[in-house]
Amino acid sequence: MGRIICCGLGPGNPDLMSVRADREVRAAKHVAYFRKKGRPGQARRIVDGLLAKDVCEYPMEYPVTTEIAFDSPGYIRLLAGFYDEWAERLARLARAVDIVVLCEGDPYFYGSFMHLRARLQGHVEIEVIAGVPGMAGCWNSVGLPIALGDDVMTVLMGTLPEHELEQRARNSDALVIMKTGRNLKKVRRALATAGRLGEAWLIERGTMPGERVARLNDVDETECPYFAIVLVHGQGRRMEAAE
Amino acid sequence: MGRIICCGLGPGNPDLMSVRADREVRAAKHVAYFRKKGRPGQARRIVDGLLAKDVCEYPMEYPVTTEIAFDSPGYIRLLAGFYDEWAERLARLARAVDIVVLCEGDPYFYGSFMHLRARLQGHVEIEVIAGVPGMAGCWNSVGLPIALGDDVMTVLMGTLPEHELEQRARNSDALVIMKTGRNLKKVRRALATAGRLGEAWLIERGTMPGERVARLNDVDETECPYFAIVLVHGQGRRMEAAE
Repeated sequence: MGRIICCGLGPGNPDLMSVRADREVRAAKHVAYFRKKGRPGQARRIVDGLLAKDVCEYPMEYPVTTEIAFDSPGYIRLLAGFYDEWAERLARLARAVDIVVLCEGDPYFYGSFMHLRARLQGHVEIEVIAGVPGMAGCWNSVGLPIALGDDVMTVLMGTLPEHELEQRARNSDALVIMKTGRNLKKVRRALATAGRLGEAWLIERGTMPGERVARLNDVDETECPYFAIVLVHGQGRRMEAAE
Repeated sequence: MGRIICCGLGPGNPDLMSVRADREVRAAKHVAYFRKKGRPGQARRIVDGLLAKDVCEYPMEYPVTTEIAFDSPGYIRLLAGFYDEWAERLARLARAVDIVVLCEGDPYFYGSFMHLRARLQGHVEIEVIAGVPGMAGCWNSVGLPIALGDDVMTVLMGTLPEHELEQRARNSDALVIMKTGRNLKKVRRALATAGRLGEAWLIERGTMPGERVARLNDVDETECPYFAIVLVHGQGRRMEAAE
């Protein structure tokens, strides 16, 4: 019996992968990873140059990404079928061999692998290796502490309604907003209404080639890559030691 | 001129250090780390067996930890003096050599190194290496996704007032409560009032020898180690794909 080893790859720079993930990726004979149809895939790109020459690759191509509304019954049905099918294929493969599943960031933190894990649990031995979450790569790229002292930090998705984004921006010290993409305009409006826009940063491809770190206020675009992250830094509520 | 390289060591298991941090720690000739007086220090313990035989060590011993109230003027003055002194010593050392500063977790995420960084900035070249945050090690130890889909995740300190803990426990999908220690009783009460106690986990020494993962409800103690973390997992608000 083989195992499924889900490797958190961290934010993008392969030097930020864990020692253990690095070891598993280099030793892998079979690797699977999610990607958008026709694209190389972010996870696959991170391990470029690390994989063995004769590795077997299993790109798991999403049947749909942003073409139809993600809360429509059609989308949900399509994706559920896709995860069912891949869970079955991986389970079959794992009867004979170990399979390394590549995942950006930290698999347990908003990771797509969890859809497979829910289906494989109890049927196959699964190991998950923690990674540096994408957001941590982003605040490292800005070079400022995201939270200090007694700061409250909130992680939000840009897909949430504007009034919720605004309210949470108002009552959190530090903010991480993921899934920005087409929601960037709404995110910007919510931060402006909450009086936090001036403190916000937009980070695209954090820690990767082509990284962009900008004050959100200076960004003209109304859209950005789906995986771009908006950060608002905490100021250190009731600091343990005053500076 | 030398540099100061702050290495995020991750949650505790040295296998979860980044490839880059591992490289810097093994090559270090001078390492500094915080610790409580008379203790080996958590950061130092993580790199046991990785350091060179002839490395010079600089334990930075807190003049005070929990002996006096952390918001008293005496505490603040003592700690500020401590950080001033060490910033000066490290800056002096860095004129001649590279110094690796060891930090648990991710340095930019509630890390004590930020007190030194604020003082050293502009005087010395500083490099910070991202690490897997301690909380990510903890949810990896539980083995369940901490957040999925559109979940809102809130990071809170157990030092906050009970009513604030309770209110935030009520209106967040996923919760991470750090700095539990002597606040465990208050944290438990707040979670119970918010109706979330049944879902809560307590993780001590996550990913390290002596790790303990327990349902908070089953824990009798009113205190726990300061670095223990309480987690409440999100259930995946408006999942992208229904299971």
